[in-house]
Amino acid sequence: MSGSCFSFTVTATDGAARLGHLETAHGPVETPVFMPVGTAGTVKAMMPESVAATGARIILGNTYHLMLRPGAERVAALGGLHRFMDWPGPILTDSGGFQVMSLAGLRTLTEDGVTFQSHIDGSRHLLTPERSMEIQDQLDATITMAFDECPPFPAEKQAVADSMRRSMRWARRSREAFRQRPGYALFGINQGGIHPDLRAESAEALTALGFEGYAVGGLAVGEPFEAMLETLEATVPLLPFDRPRYLMGVGRPEDIVAAVARGIDMFDCVMPTRSGRTAKAFTRTGDLNLRNARHRDDPGPLDPACSCPACRRFSRAYLHHLVRAEEILGPMLLTWHNLQYYQDLMADLRQAIGQGSLETFLATFHATRAQGNGPAPA
Amino acid sequence: MSGSCFSFTVTATDGAARLGHLETAHGPVETPVFMPVGTAGTVKAMMPESVAATGARIILGNTYHLMLRPGAERVAALGGLHRFMDWPGPILTDSGGFQVMSLAGLRTLTEDGVTFQSHIDGSRHLLTPERSMEIQDQLDATITMAFDECPPFPAEKQAVADSMRRSMRWARRSREAFRQRPGYALFGINQGGIHPDLRAESAEALTALGFEGYAVGGLAVGEPFEAMLETLEATVPLLPFDRPRYLMGVGRPEDIVAAVARGIDMFDCVMPTRSGRTAKAFTRTGDLNLRNARHRDDPGPLDPACSCPACRRFSRAYLHHLVRAEEILGPMLLTWHNLQYYQDLMADLRQAIGQGSLETFLATFHATRAQGNGPAPA
Repeated sequence: MSGSCFSFTVTATDGAARLGHLETAHGPVETPVFMPVGTAGTVKAMMPESVAATGARIILGNTYHLMLRPGAERVAALGGLHRFMDWPGPILTDSGGFQVMSLAGLRTLTEDGVTFQSHIDGSRHLLTPERSMEIQDQLDATITMAFDECPPFPAEKQAVADSMRRSMRWARRSREAFRQRPGYALFGINQGGIHPDLRAESAEALTALGFEGYAVGGLAVGEPFEAMLETLEATVPLLPFDRPRYLMGVGRPEDIVAAVARGIDMFDCVMPTRSGRTAKAFTRTGDLNLRNARHRDDPGPLDPACSCPACRRFSRAYLHHLVRAEEILGPMLLTWHNLQYYQDLMADLRQAIGQGSLETFLATFHATRAQGNGPAPA
Repeated sequence: MSGSCFSFTVTATDGAARLGHLETAHGPVETPVFMPVGTAGTVKAMMPESVAATGARIILGNTYHLMLRPGAERVAALGGLHRFMDWPGPILTDSGGFQVMSLAGLRTLTEDGVTFQSHIDGSRHLLTPERSMEIQDQLDATITMAFDECPPFPAEKQAVADSMRRSMRWARRSREAFRQRPGYALFGINQGGIHPDLRAESAEALTALGFEGYAVGGLAVGEPFEAMLETLEATVPLLPFDRPRYLMGVGRPEDIVAAVARGIDMFDCVMPTRSGRTAKAFTRTGDLNLRNARHRDDPGPLDPACSCPACRRFSRAYLHHLVRAEEILGPMLLTWHNLQYYQDLMADLRQAIGQGSLETFLATFHATRAQGNGPAPA
């Protein structure tokens, strides 16, 4: 194992936005960064070197899926997740808490943790802060997430407060159970719904414990866009300046640029990969659906400004044909394009912050996207 | 368009087997050669450069599928099939005759041709020798196949004879309708079922017309393996020595090596690609099914002698996981491996023929394959 330390350096700011550099046991990461989601040990429909070719440097794995299949002990015996899926770069794993609540059956929540039934084979499992840390360690996660609970939206404020306080007690247990190794990190997760006072209480609890990074959880779960932005504006300034800030599960390109402008450094979302499997493509001039008959005879590229294979070597007519014929190459090419779009967006954001021109970039971004290729991917 | 001629040169022989060199408008091909099947404008689950990376130099497209979707006129307007699917190398298209009989609905066969109903949308279509030539020209096929009828197996000898004689009349109409261009070729198709006298009559009719290459059709349609070999032994010597010989739709590795030893130069089959999508893998020591639980904890490669990404970078345990989790990367990697296996087999056959050691190679091939990884892919 490398002896390098996990570190984060803010190298420039532009308003609340930050340009940063992350050092990890598995290599460096420039922030703001988007992490493609590799749920079950693969970024769906992509070869690992193709993921890297888009500019991605860190990906996300899902503890819930991997603990059920193939099993964390099995991944550990096979050399860890990096080797298992041939991704030598950094991997962040979530804690399993969010997906237990959204995917598993027969859940029972206690102070100790959550018992649940696998959505795959109905088998019974227990996740606690200690077990979540053990699993993420077995997976060899570069960045481990504290075990938390994400309450549904909308919910009574008292229920949100109770849930957040339990998550803070679980954050302490996660901190204590986490096996610290050079170049590896544990991130705490801020909760509190859309209530600034609860978010502040959560931020205070987390910073008192001390984490290598801080996530904002429980957003993009159905609340209005404005409520998400207000919550970020109230919460982000309470997180340590010299630690990476990660907005979990977000989101659309418009969400990401707004959150970067409010000081967020890290993102993950299934949107580019999932959209790629449902014929939807993000482009600089808006989003489009390749299933639409208007692409049938179009010899032009998906996005003339994009460097990915789907845009450089194939026509919209060909992509439309692949979608209609239900050919696997359709999801392969559209996923690649969407990941390239997201990585290019992050590179543009980093450049703009470094040049102090984020405001100009955002104006151009919104004006161009509004040119309208059609409705945004769902 | 290049002015180069279509030519075939036999550069070495070993018994009935031949080492050959094909020159085409879209580049050279060394024979014996296996052509991956790209039915609907894509070799399923593969990027074109990955197909080329396995060593493939020529692929097959299906006239029946492409005429129905996206349509031959549309492909022509988009610059032809090479440009449409980004495969600059040679493409052979079949005539549509075989798949009309196996896939389409409500078929009516007359001396003129076949009317049928699309299996996609029920629309009515007509295929004749003249229309098949026109479609393959619109697709910009490097090698066009004469329009023929493949009778079912088993069938009465008189029905096979009637069908073969109609195919020979259609072969004449195909020859007359084909638009000859430098570097492009038209192949005739020998028919006659498993009857040596009918095969001989067909060979005489075809050679009298004169084609740039000769296919053996109507085999691997359910007849016993020995009947296929006997038919090849009776038919192949009647085909011109100085023209490429193509055994259509064949087959298993064991079929291919047997046919090469009997003087066949070209092959196509969906087996490596289709098997890759159903978890089946060909290896030097026999075939296996990655769905099988015995691979679950196996850190070893699929085939240690194989150079493909599936074998060099991933474990059997990982491939098993991808199959069980129904991840798209599973078919992607297994298709790649199977195509690599077939291309390596053809390279080994070419080397053995060049060295005059085909008999030794075949003995080793059969002994190694019989070591038994499990039952052969269906």
